[in-house]
Amino acid sequence: MAIISLTTDFGTRDEYVGVMKAVILGIDPSAAVVDVSHAIEPQDVVQAAFLVHSAHAYFPHGSIHLVVVDPGVGTARDILLLDRGGHRFVAPDNGVLSLMMDGGAPFRLRRLENPDWRLAAVSGTFHGRDIMAPAAARLSRGADPAEFGPEVDPRAVVRLRDLRPRPTSGGIDGRVVQVDGFGNLVTNIDRETFEAVVASGVPEIRVGDAATRGIRRTYADGAPGTLLALFGSRGTLEIAVAGGDARRMLGADKGATVRVRCP
Amino acid sequence: MAIISLTTDFGTRDEYVGVMKAVILGIDPSAAVVDVSHAIEPQDVVQAAFLVHSAHAYFPHGSIHLVVVDPGVGTARDILLLDRGGHRFVAPDNGVLSLMMDGGAPFRLRRLENPDWRLAAVSGTFHGRDIMAPAAARLSRGADPAEFGPEVDPRAVVRLRDLRPRPTSGGIDGRVVQVDGFGNLVTNIDRETFEAVVASGVPEIRVGDAATRGIRRTYADGAPGTLLALFGSRGTLEIAVAGGDARRMLGADKGATVRVRCP
Amino acid sequence: MAIISLTTDFGTRDEYVGVMKAVILGIDPSAAVVDVSHAIEPQDVVQAAFLVHSAHAYFPHGSIHLVVVDPGVGTARDILLLDRGGHRFVAPDNGVLSLMMDGGAPFRLRRLENPDWRLAAVSGTFHGRDIMAPAAARLSRGADPAEFGPEVDPRAVVRLRDLRPRPTSGGIDGRVVQVDGFGNLVTNIDRETFEAVVASGVPEIRVGDAATRGIRRTYADGAPGTLLALFGSRGTLEIAVAGGDARRMLGADKGATVRVRCP
Repeated sequence: MAIISLTTDFGTRDEYVGVMKAVILGIDPSAAVVDVSHAIEPQDVVQAAFLVHSAHAYFPHGSIHLVVVDPGVGTARDILLLDRGGHRFVAPDNGVLSLMMDGGAPFRLRRLENPDWRLAAVSGTFHGRDIMAPAAARLSRGADPAEFGPEVDPRAVVRLRDLRPRPTSGGIDGRVVQVDGFGNLVTNIDRETFEAVVASGVPEIRVGDAATRGIRRTYADGAPGTLLALFGSRGTLEIAVAGGDARRMLGADKGATVRVRCP
Repeated sequence: MAIISLTTDFGTRDEYVGVMKAVILGIDPSAAVVDVSHAIEPQDVVQAAFLVHSAHAYFPHGSIHLVVVDPGVGTARDILLLDRGGHRFVAPDNGVLSLMMDGGAPFRLRRLENPDWRLAAVSGTFHGRDIMAPAAARLSRGADPAEFGPEVDPRAVVRLRDLRPRPTSGGIDGRVVQVDGFGNLVTNIDRETFEAVVASGVPEIRVGDAATRGIRRTYADGAPGTLLALFGSRGTLEIAVAGGDARRMLGADKGATVRVRCP
Repeated sequence: MAIISLTTDFGTRDEYVGVMKAVILGIDPSAAVVDVSHAIEPQDVVQAAFLVHSAHAYFPHGSIHLVVVDPGVGTARDILLLDRGGHRFVAPDNGVLSLMMDGGAPFRLRRLENPDWRLAAVSGTFHGRDIMAPAAARLSRGADPAEFGPEVDPRAVVRLRDLRPRPTSGGIDGRVVQVDGFGNLVTNIDRETFEAVVASGVPEIRVGDAATRGIRRTYADGAPGTLLALFGSRGTLEIAVAGGDARRMLGADKGATVRVRCP
């Protein structure tokens, strides 16, 4: 039994996610389908890139991650299979897998070409259902990845730049990549980058005009209403308010710059 | 293993969907339950009728579709089993299965009468949990449909009228039956009806004061902000805005009239 | 195969629920995970206590209920295992299991101490993923509950008071504990308490300035717009509006006092 994770911008009001699962189970009845998120903002490839990168590591080896955030649906963009570290990803060639190609770990890419891996009728508007879900289900049923299609040179696929935090003269500039349901501002500043720059002392973390000093361990490390920074469950720096909602308190949202300043 | 699909107007804030699944798995632990949608607008039998009709075709043969949109819960309305083309539907007798009775394909109807197919205690307010989920789970476990209850004459059940698009002198009048999460206006104008009326030339498609000419293939077929019409993933005409949100741009919503005019 | 039910305040926008399921399936691939609700209001332990208590009874014996509403995440509060009547609950020691300890049925409590039952790396902010999900999955895979940790004296854990309705001189005072997706006001006034107090006659049920007399059987028992009271699917008193939304009509919300007055 393989796990297929789903990340889309479809929402759950419509039948779209359900029919993708129906297609998957029709091909591989033993697949376990796990929703990661269907609340990626419409066509926000960057948000999906971060979310999938964070989530995949908690899935068992052998999992297949289907990522359908696809502004170019129906156009000529390819569908990719990326294989890295025991995880396989099926997604459009639009940069959504960029973070899975970073960091130096070896990976392999293929481009979907096998017409037998699609539904008999392919729409111009829903390749998640008609092309990507069937391909993921074939893989989970044990098909040879070579049947997916030919290998692709990593330099030939879309790679998003500027996803990583940027060291500056006095510290690090990063950005909010997700605001979670509690209003915590999740950034792209990972612990490794942080510790390489902030060697010692108590850094200042700044979002717009608001600032906090030092890194806490939990959301409860501070009197209610205190702005605080900590390394959250994604392993990256988060800005939070003890017992409160940082988004609302700071008026900051996805995309906001977060600055770390060394002491 | 059988698949049971779920379509309700319960939302997912409450425990209602979860307890239906619990009841199903208590009777048939091997059932695979797939959410189609729980965001049908409260008691909107028409919206559910379209959504279930569109979604069911992507499920494998042998699937069971449980539809709990049930304004008459606790009153004397029957619970039906409809069997058509390898799919079985369990739903209240309120018209929600009307589209599954259209089109000429043979089908059979039964009325639930078997008291052993219910939970021991039946509430007056949640027959989805107490009656319909147990019945669906018995079927998925392989029980004989004849145990569900006696056959019913199709003329004796509720049939909604006016669900199909209406040919007019100069074209077709249809309506918006779903606004998806991207703001696309999904209509009830199917390709067959469309092609029977629009034999040749470039038709005009009109929603209120806005109009577009011709049929595109994808949401990306047009400069950003362009109003466009295409046959969407449901196989029916959709009104969309390239890179945008047609609901917001047009101020149109579920129920709005969509007019196709032949050239 | 065991069922693991999930109740959290995480919402479904983020990847949090998905990664908990990934962790569970990585440990017990045969577990069936059922979402009860992820829409508990942030850190609302009382709302979760009622919801879990209502929902659990519809799950088959042997089910494991994972409840992650955890304002104290990362602090010294314990993680508990409560075993009652064939159901097991894994939750923080913050009162969220209080109703499962009421009513006189025997139960046993343990405190998680086994370091092998956690993920290798434990964050300070997401014990649902790092500690509670792995523990639930070990249990569902058949591990001996004694390995969870030592037994705990029930008097040593957090118990919320004031969750039950309160008999008054002229009737019962209860409160709204959930507003469901239809706008129905679900109270904590159970049928047993009600029938012990309202021995005969037609009681008045009052929410703020609005009142209704008598108990109906279904939401359709009354002309559209009629305020009505009935015992809902949770088995407790609900205030509803026939064909309408009681929350909106009464302007009442979670926490509102509901008074039953004997005739």
